Amino acid sequence: MTGAVRPTDLDPSIAAKLKRDRDGLLAAVAQQHDTGEVLMVGWMDDEALHRTLTTGRATYWSRSRQEYWVKGDTSGSQQWVKSVRLDCDGDTVLVQVDQAGSGACHTGDRTCFDAVLLPAVEGSRPEPAEPAVRTDTPAADPDAASPS
Amino acid sequence: MTGAVRPTDLDPSIAAKLKRDRDGLLAAVAQQHDTGEVLMVGWMDDEALHRTLTTGRATYWSRSRQEYWVKGDTSGSQQWVKSVRLDCDGDTVLVQVDQAGSGACHTGDRTCFDAVLLPAVEGSRPEPAEPAVRTDTPAADPDAASPS
Repeated sequence: MTGAVRPTDLDPSIAAKLKRDRDGLLAAVAQQHDTGEVLMVGWMDDEALHRTLTTGRATYWSRSRQEYWVKGDTSGSQQWVKSVRLDCDGDTVLVQVDQAGSGACHTGDRTCFDAVLLPAVEGSRPEPAEPAVRTDTPAADPDAASPS
Repeated sequence: MTGAVRPTDLDPSIAAKLKRDRDGLLAAVAQQHDTGEVLMVGWMDDEALHRTLTTGRATYWSRSRQEYWVKGDTSGSQQWVKSVRLDCDGDTVLVQVDQAGSGACHTGDRTCFDAVLLPAVEGSRPEPAEPAVRTDTPAADPDAASPS
């Protein structure tokens, strides 16, 4: 079914904004609407997006099972939709949800990103340049050192 | 270059955890580390992940230009890496960053999700079932009504 176009009731004016991958899918980032936690990333075709926009429940396309997947129908961990935003190039949606149940991850974790922290060098923005400090105190002059 | 394997210095023990798409890429969600804002979604191959983990700067693979892209090198809007997490099935990373400059989006917006809010029906988790209330007060008995 890869790349096949499945029938959809998605509003054509929304469909026209989408830039799908070669399998006809958008990436969908699910975020807890109040805490900001990134819960998981799934995939949506036009019809999954339509169902997400119209049913109040986040609905994905399962690439492995090649079927629609209403999050929580099996696990009880529903995602209740609060808002859906499309990104600037039309290939990703940000779905803000209220995550019910034990969490978003099939492992039982709250988010799919809880388990594996990779070792990373932390970066920091450079300190702002110090304003040039004018000192009226003359530089120490070795010749002026008090005799020892 | 689609699907080609580019040379990389990524730690093999990390590389072994990755489940890349057919172009050899992972989705990478960039999130502002302190506010939780989802800034953008980009793509990383093994070497982009290696550079992200080791340089303190979020580094992506540009699918359109087919080259590495150190976020902010051109725009000044660097992403300073705070942490990198891999998801449960190894195909997505969550990169928590400190977003510098005007923002993450090439349009000048703070995030790539600022511009397009799609019309969505809001969902809400059902109210918890009311606990059965036992009342010891007998139901009002019309026969016991005080005479009017």
